[in-house]
Amino acid sequence: MKRISSVSEDTEFTFNPLIVLELAKKTQNETIEWLTQRIKERKHLGGAHLKIKPLDAHTKNSQIFLIGASWRRLLVGAEALGLVKEYQDGSMRAFIYQNKEDYKYFSDNNDDFLTMAEQQYIIKRELENLRAINETMVPGYPQAKLYPGKSIIRRLQTSGLLLQIYPLHNKTELKKLGTIWYKRLQVALQPLNDIENYFGQNIALYFAFLEYFTIALFPMALIGVPYYFFAWEDYDKYIVFATFNLLWSTIVLEVWKRWCAKLSYQWGTLLMKRQFEEPRPGFHGKLGLNPVTGRKEPTYPTYKRQLRIYLISVPFVCLSLYISLFVMMIYFQMEALALAYSKEDQSFFSSILLYCPSIIYGVVIEIMNRLYKYAAEWLTSWENHRLESSYQNHLILKVLVFNFINCFASLFYIAFILQDMKLLRQSLAALLITSQILNQFVESVLPYWLQKRRNRILKKKFHISSLEKELPLVDQVKLEREMDKYLGTFDDYLELFQQFGFVSLFSCVYPLAAILAVLNNITEVYTDGLKMCCVFQRPFFEPVSDIGVWLLAFETMGIISVMTNCALIGMSPQVKRLFQRNDVELVLLVLAIEHVLLALKFILAFAISDVPSDIRTKVARMEFESLKALKQKQMKEADESMAKEEQLDETKREQEEKKKI
Amino acid sequence: MKRISSVSEDTEFTFNPLIVLELAKKTQNETIEWLTQRIKERKHLGGAHLKIKPLDAHTKNSQIFLIGASWRRLLVGAEALGLVKEYQDGSMRAFIYQNKEDYKYFSDNNDDFLTMAEQQYIIKRELENLRAINETMVPGYPQAKLYPGKSIIRRLQTSGLLLQIYPLHNKTELKKLGTIWYKRLQVALQPLNDIENYFGQNIALYFAFLEYFTIALFPMALIGVPYYFFAWEDYDKYIVFATFNLLWSTIVLEVWKRWCAKLSYQWGTLLMKRQFEEPRPGFHGKLGLNPVTGRKEPTYPTYKRQLRIYLISVPFVCLSLYISLFVMMIYFQMEALALAYSKEDQSFFSSILLYCPSIIYGVVIEIMNRLYKYAAEWLTSWENHRLESSYQNHLILKVLVFNFINCFASLFYIAFILQDMKLLRQSLAALLITSQILNQFVESVLPYWLQKRRNRILKKKFHISSLEKELPLVDQVKLEREMDKYLGTFDDYLELFQQFGFVSLFSCVYPLAAILAVLNNITEVYTDGLKMCCVFQRPFFEPVSDIGVWLLAFETMGIISVMTNCALIGMSPQVKRLFQRNDVELVLLVLAIEHVLLALKFILAFAISDVPSDIRTKVARMEFESLKALKQKQMKEADESMAKEEQLDETKREQEEKKKI
Repeated sequence: MKRISSVSEDTEFTFNPLIVLELAKKTQNETIEWLTQRIKERKHLGGAHLKIKPLDAHTKNSQIFLIGASWRRLLVGAEALGLVKEYQDGSMRAFIYQNKEDYKYFSDNNDDFLTMAEQQYIIKRELENLRAINETMVPGYPQAKLYPGKSIIRRLQTSGLLLQIYPLHNKTELKKLGTIWYKRLQVALQPLNDIENYFGQNIALYFAFLEYFTIALFPMALIGVPYYFFAWEDYDKYIVFATFNLLWSTIVLEVWKRWCAKLSYQWGTLLMKRQFEEPRPGFHGKLGLNPVTGRKEPTYPTYKRQLRIYLISVPFVCLSLYISLFVMMIYFQMEALALAYSKEDQSFFSSILLYCPSIIYGVVIEIMNRLYKYAAEWLTSWENHRLESSYQNHLILKVLVFNFINCFASLFYIAFILQDMKLLRQSLAALLITSQILNQFVESVLPYWLQKRRNRILKKKFHISSLEKELPLVDQVKLEREMDKYLGTFDDYLELFQQFGFVSLFSCVYPLAAILAVLNNITEVYTDGLKMCCVFQRPFFEPVSDIGVWLLAFETMGIISVMTNCALIGMSPQVKRLFQRNDVELVLLVLAIEHVLLALKFILAFAISDVPSDIRTKVARMEFESLKALKQKQMKEADESMAKEEQLDETKREQEEKKKI
Repeated sequence: MKRISSVSEDTEFTFNPLIVLELAKKTQNETIEWLTQRIKERKHLGGAHLKIKPLDAHTKNSQIFLIGASWRRLLVGAEALGLVKEYQDGSMRAFIYQNKEDYKYFSDNNDDFLTMAEQQYIIKRELENLRAINETMVPGYPQAKLYPGKSIIRRLQTSGLLLQIYPLHNKTELKKLGTIWYKRLQVALQPLNDIENYFGQNIALYFAFLEYFTIALFPMALIGVPYYFFAWEDYDKYIVFATFNLLWSTIVLEVWKRWCAKLSYQWGTLLMKRQFEEPRPGFHGKLGLNPVTGRKEPTYPTYKRQLRIYLISVPFVCLSLYISLFVMMIYFQMEALALAYSKEDQSFFSSILLYCPSIIYGVVIEIMNRLYKYAAEWLTSWENHRLESSYQNHLILKVLVFNFINCFASLFYIAFILQDMKLLRQSLAALLITSQILNQFVESVLPYWLQKRRNRILKKKFHISSLEKELPLVDQVKLEREMDKYLGTFDDYLELFQQFGFVSLFSCVYPLAAILAVLNNITEVYTDGLKMCCVFQRPFFEPVSDIGVWLLAFETMGIISVMTNCALIGMSPQVKRLFQRNDVELVLLVLAIEHVLLALKFILAFAISDVPSDIRTKVARMEFESLKALKQKQMKEADESMAKEEQLDETKREQEEKKKI
């Protein structure tokens, strides 16, 4: 843990800067003073009780501030957020300040107990929870209205006064992490715990999923290679492959849930109570009362949102799907042209030309995906969802539907309408490879190269020789200020989702898909790691215990893949030969198999417990103990007050009897 | 609330008998004294702090005891069990003794605050929680071993010393309930809240489901009647009917979830925390440690249970299914014989004979169902499940699979193998009507008649003229002691499950099914009500918030009915005529429709929220407030201890500085 002691300026305490707050240039002094005051104020006076210092004390009107807190304040914050820590007996428990000595790794002079990422998260949440008391506006900005209970930071953000708020990197730790993560070529698993330590559970879970998924692809890849080389034209064999595929996709997702539960138990998020969800920053509406909290907050009528969704968003999605299908039909025309040309002119050039339409279509698909995503983000934001989770769900649904149709419609068309297995294989290969190359380029190589260029400029600006070295704090802050914001794991999961589709929907016709996916994912680990560490600002820690709605998306894809694979089996020449005369019987048989497999899938999903039994026992023990403790306390109080009341009754009765006498 | 003041015997308190404990005749005095002592002892001394009195103080060696408690003790017990009561502001909250004044309907001199059923439940749970401290055996019975933490009542039950334990009826309330429930023929909903008050949520939810399901059948019944009369031989029209059926079954179950949530919120069980589940009474094994509670309890290795399940139970179920199918084949032979005979000899007698095989088969099915259920109960109990819930799930699964095959296999065979719609209709009608008549007879008429006969004998024995009147307590206790135990809602739900199958699987070929089901259910309400009130001992209250695994069973039936109805549509002559030449296309189309409908079903189930939004808001507000209160308390404590520690540090530093000087 880095500590920058600023003893010269302030002998009272050591100040450990954790996050950076950048205000707009024009911000008035009055506002800054008020904000500083509110941040420093003690909790019971309505403040956040944090430490704040201008980055550069010498220049007046500084707009960049560093925020930190005493280690005791951070511990209290950890309790407030319900962070879960390892207890002395090895179990995981919600941290309680008064029992701090009972937690493993805790010692009075050691602030490694909370990781830097956790400390930054605590400060961020405390800042967000800093609420207006009786201010009606931000001092100096009458148009930035406040009302009791309104988050001050959110208002500053929406009124453009707060430009950005980001946690600081820790160069030493980052270098250590990089060395064991992506800087060496090695056959080893990723240092997931270190990633979790530095970036938080959200990002660590993505990398865990990426790693898990890649390893899960190994058997598919291993079986795929001999298929590819020895049975190139022998479509018949893919019955075995398709069946394997089916079982594989089901079991992989079930086992992932268990692995995910294990990780999130270990990282403390499985036991973390869900925090009450605040309205998302962009949410606006008439000021009203929240029926749950009773607090003042903006309200927006549901019917208006529904109108926006059904009258604008749904038609927009349908139109986009239509355009996507239209582009697909153009692709098939191009394909036909290319085929006709190559039949006429059988040169080397024409055989390459044969692949061109697929590659062009692949590029167009990627472009359309990206354009659509911007539109979907804008639309979903315009729908004005109250909660971030609801916003995310609507966004993911929009994007997934489009992505699915956009990426796979042509394959479905080739497989089931044209029934051309050769074209299907060729098209699948072209789409898969194109999308992987494009993704690698756009997501990692491009930002890395842009960053390199920017770093060169920055180096000149700050007169430094290397960015890897420990820099003076002022330079570090200014450097990280220029970096891009990491926009979350959405794109990364989406990429895996597409890949899962390519691998499971039709992979029996192109068994190399799995091995291509494995190779892509191995490089993806390195490029994503590099991206996280060097290209972006450090992201804030997000405590999550699973991959959320993505799991549902993957499971849906699994169900669809059962159907496509069954259909492929039914269409295979070998099977068709068996039922030469009676097509109806064949279709009914395939149908029966499909239903049995789907039923099996549901039974498997139901029978395999989502949480391993040892974790379940641990969680149950924890809950049992805390419940018992609570109950005992309650019961003792109730018993005592009952005894007291009974005694009172007794005395009263005695007095009455005395009176009678 | 009935109060029997026994002032003459005991001037200190009024004793309100709530439940009855009947020990074996031979029980030794030593044991009785010890038990009485433990039940009376105060809580902190390890007792149950209840009141206990022999039924007949004049005869020595009485084996029947009455148990009651002071109203304060009952309130404390209500808190311990987490009972939920209406708060002053109309919200539902877990009862807390110290805040008792803040609950609606609470007043010091009023013990209607807790219903009699709740009081009996509290006493039962307190008795079950009476645990051995350092006894190693039941005094007087060295073979009845005890160990610290073992429930005393359970040991007395398993060692045969405790014959029965039952709550007392309240004749006045019962009569009132009977009048508004089943004694008048009326067009009105059942008095669900009164049923809940008297019998508890478990039974009230069954009656609520029965009522809901019957009302939900109304549209089906209304549409069914004209179909039956005007389109008797016109199978074509059932496409519309089948489609309606599909949507109906999905929506009905989704809306039930919401209605159920509403009821259980109102009855306080939606918010009730799940209690920690103790091993079921019949569970036995080597004494070990429970990994969750750390308490001593019997343990039984999972692999042994698995062996029993897979080596004995599963083969047994398969064998039973085989026998059931074998019986079905005999039925078809009988059917063929009857048909042949009626063709030869076309008399009135032979046309009646035509229905005989179906009726006989219907009776045989019911007999096999009942025999199988006994076997399944014995087997599941032999599997030695630790928890009652696990026992129930295994039992329900066994029974459901067999019932489904046993009741519906012949219909499936007729519909899809023989494709004989006329026979299907005839068979369905015969099965449905036979099973309804048999059920009504076995479940209600027979027990009621037996009870009447027994009552006549009892009347003579106790020299009373009417059982309806208020009896002396001693007689009432002895009378109820002779009554049968109510064995739970299992059979009642099973009957509804079968009915749901008859209505939804093939009802389009026999549209009268729905109206028959409605008529049956209306009489069922009356006979079941009568049965609950007059035939059985009062059952103990069971707080449940939904119908549990039965909902899953109904949902599965709904999914299967989508498939059967789609297949029936595909097989209808009208549709077949449309696709005269191309059977494959027809099958594929039906297949596509089925998939779309199933997808729609899942989307509907996902989109319709299981809990109505107003209940969700109330629950969220309750949780938010209790969380806020807890957090505020915690934070205040943490803040204070932090401030104290900081001050200490300060003092230390000052002292050090002074030393330096």
